[in-house]
Amino acid sequence: MTGEDLDKYCAAHEQRFTDELIDFLRIPSISADPEHAADVRRNAEYLRDALLQAGFQRAELVETSGHPSVYAERMVDRSKPTALVYGHHDVQPVDPLDEWVSPPFEPAVRDGNLHARGAVDDKGQVWMHLKAVQAHVETRGELPLNLKLIVEGEEESGSVHFEELVVAERERLQADVLVVSDTGVLAPDLPSLCTGLRGLAAVEVTVHGPSLDLHSGVFGGAVMNPIAALARIIAGLHDPVTGRVTVPGFYDDVRPLNQEDRELLARVPYDESEFLAEAGGISATAGEEGFTVLERRSVRPTLELNGVWGGYSGPGTKTIIPASASAKITCRLVPDQLPDDIARTVAAAIHDAAPRGVRVETQIQHGGRPVLTPVQHPAVQAAARAMAQVFGKEPLFTREGGSIPPVESFSRVMGMPAVLVGVGLPDDRIHAPNEKFNLAMYQRGIRVLAHLWDELAPALSAAS
Amino acid sequence: MTGEDLDKYCAAHEQRFTDELIDFLRIPSISADPEHAADVRRNAEYLRDALLQAGFQRAELVETSGHPSVYAERMVDRSKPTALVYGHHDVQPVDPLDEWVSPPFEPAVRDGNLHARGAVDDKGQVWMHLKAVQAHVETRGELPLNLKLIVEGEEESGSVHFEELVVAERERLQADVLVVSDTGVLAPDLPSLCTGLRGLAAVEVTVHGPSLDLHSGVFGGAVMNPIAALARIIAGLHDPVTGRVTVPGFYDDVRPLNQEDRELLARVPYDESEFLAEAGGISATAGEEGFTVLERRSVRPTLELNGVWGGYSGPGTKTIIPASASAKITCRLVPDQLPDDIARTVAAAIHDAAPRGVRVETQIQHGGRPVLTPVQHPAVQAAARAMAQVFGKEPLFTREGGSIPPVESFSRVMGMPAVLVGVGLPDDRIHAPNEKFNLAMYQRGIRVLAHLWDELAPALSAAS
Repeated sequence: MTGEDLDKYCAAHEQRFTDELIDFLRIPSISADPEHAADVRRNAEYLRDALLQAGFQRAELVETSGHPSVYAERMVDRSKPTALVYGHHDVQPVDPLDEWVSPPFEPAVRDGNLHARGAVDDKGQVWMHLKAVQAHVETRGELPLNLKLIVEGEEESGSVHFEELVVAERERLQADVLVVSDTGVLAPDLPSLCTGLRGLAAVEVTVHGPSLDLHSGVFGGAVMNPIAALARIIAGLHDPVTGRVTVPGFYDDVRPLNQEDRELLARVPYDESEFLAEAGGISATAGEEGFTVLERRSVRPTLELNGVWGGYSGPGTKTIIPASASAKITCRLVPDQLPDDIARTVAAAIHDAAPRGVRVETQIQHGGRPVLTPVQHPAVQAAARAMAQVFGKEPLFTREGGSIPPVESFSRVMGMPAVLVGVGLPDDRIHAPNEKFNLAMYQRGIRVLAHLWDELAPALSAAS
Repeated sequence: MTGEDLDKYCAAHEQRFTDELIDFLRIPSISADPEHAADVRRNAEYLRDALLQAGFQRAELVETSGHPSVYAERMVDRSKPTALVYGHHDVQPVDPLDEWVSPPFEPAVRDGNLHARGAVDDKGQVWMHLKAVQAHVETRGELPLNLKLIVEGEEESGSVHFEELVVAERERLQADVLVVSDTGVLAPDLPSLCTGLRGLAAVEVTVHGPSLDLHSGVFGGAVMNPIAALARIIAGLHDPVTGRVTVPGFYDDVRPLNQEDRELLARVPYDESEFLAEAGGISATAGEEGFTVLERRSVRPTLELNGVWGGYSGPGTKTIIPASASAKITCRLVPDQLPDDIARTVAAAIHDAAPRGVRVETQIQHGGRPVLTPVQHPAVQAAARAMAQVFGKEPLFTREGGSIPPVESFSRVMGMPAVLVGVGLPDDRIHAPNEKFNLAMYQRGIRVLAHLWDELAPALSAAS
């Protein structure tokens, strides 16, 4: 195994790596709160300076209409492959503040965990990249490939200006692969790599009936009730027996799962009672027949109702036929479904299902494409080797059910394959009080990324 | 035709009848507004004094936990039949005030209509009763039957204390028939009598899924969505083809319509485009196959959705599987359906339809029984003759789709048959700005009620 020099360097500097992260975590870079705008900028400047100290040749703020991103690069040799790292330096708000055991911006170590807002999401995982580069530069004087890094300042407030940035900076951000460390592993002894994210299509539907609420005594029985019509439309979107989405054409572009992908997913441990507890204490799973619970949550498309409203919802009884009723629908997409196609298909099915006497209005909202890098991709295989070297165990391959919009932007705008190498743990309480980063995972993460550049450089050279 | 003496008296005093009503309408007896509590009491005292002047031997306030009612009686002879009149002396609020052409409590006559809050609902129709009694007493010295009158002070704020009053005063309120003048006729030249009111059963349903909103990316596809489950349950409550309610046993206690009732209802004019316009500009009628639009609205039971809510309803997209979703359901009932039976039956059907993975909770709310006095009942026939004498035309028989809770209380608590003799018009704008009472209808109403006592006394004597 190569990389023993890197491991040795990392082992010798663990305490410093932790101390540096603690200092970085003191800056309250809450992007959603305008009162912290100056802190987000100060955080970006702090990161820029640290990147230069860590060995990047160039580091600078990239201004957007919102909070600044930070760009850095160490260009080694134009004939070598190039990797681009994405992360974010902003953090979530901290309320409810009184549930924090130690203040969110006064990092505290307890039981081997570093507690602070942003510890693992994502300042800690960004800092791992700085230290991995430093390990290479200080050990060997150089990186084995060209490295670029873009660290966003608005991920926790919706990445609203990030796609603009990607489009504007696409030349400078060009790379052979995108590496993202904003995810996690299944457990400390279950290393894993996420190779896919689902996309999103969104439709809002409103069923219009009478122009005003009608008295249900005077009109009830002769007027189509908009809530009843909406319920009928919504209920018809799933087959109650098979759990499949009934929208014509919904599955047309779904790439069939190959046997290998299914077998890899099947290795991920699944405990039914644990899942039911995690899912808010439900009594049974549901979904599409013919697929496992993990497949339903990650590699199969879905149609979900996110909200419904209409008529009277106050105390007691109000005897009306309401003027309208509405629902919000989002679909999770898998390759090769496209958001606009699916949204239009769902909207068409809704219109077709409208009963007489009501008027249906649909509105297609912003979506995102699914992202998938095949397990066989050289970059994924390189990341798997790096993980195995550090964890002493082959990683499992997972696919996540949610989306990471910046990853989707890179995939769609630049056609770049993505590797998601994160070392968070399921109990890290991201977005919640008492967020933490397990320090053993932090140190392992630095070494995984250091090893990753060693594995990635020859793999990408051979592939090109 | 008898009653020419009464007609002559009424014709001679039309101007006074109008002037008196104008004075009564100046008191702003808004029961829903605590700031008008003293006005409601002053209104009751004013009415009490006017009842004594009109010929009642006894008149007094009846205190409740809310606003006072007024009771009056003129007991002629214990061997004669007794009628009880119900009305209300409180009025609706007046907002939006700036839409009134003349101030709501400064009654103004325009184009033969008296404009004021409470003009027809119900102070004007209560005042008709005073004048009808006065016509008898001043023309002949006596009424042909015993007459009692109870005028409520809280009808427009939900009659919340009225059933208590009926129960407490049931002995004093005992009568052979209840006469209510709080309804209307189909048109000035289409006299009509309402012989039935639908009842009400109310159920609220909540579908509980996960204990908290779940991320639809992470969990979507493997968890039963409470909105989808609710939609399926609700959609299943009606047959989409026949429009019938599918709840097992729902129609078991519905008394079959006899051919005569259907023929009488079929005489009521119906204009489809007029109905669609009235019903808020809908594009088509809906409902139970095999019945006319009027039958569906009045003599057939219904199940309506009054409200639905769950999950996110703000702007944009929130990708959750919500923790719960709820709906409010009311059924309109016809004889011999009972509110508790129907509510329990509907709740049971809802529980039976719950899919796996969610928990359904139902809550039965306050309802009311249907009320029906057969067209053949001597009191209805007496009222029909009185109407024909004044309008010069036989009245049509209608049944209303809504409920009048005090009428339901009298029917249920005291088993008293009800006759609904009102002379409002469909365009009187009750509960809205510029409420009015057509003065020709007001004068006719006084004469109808005067004639009614002449017709009712022998009819009830013969029936007993």
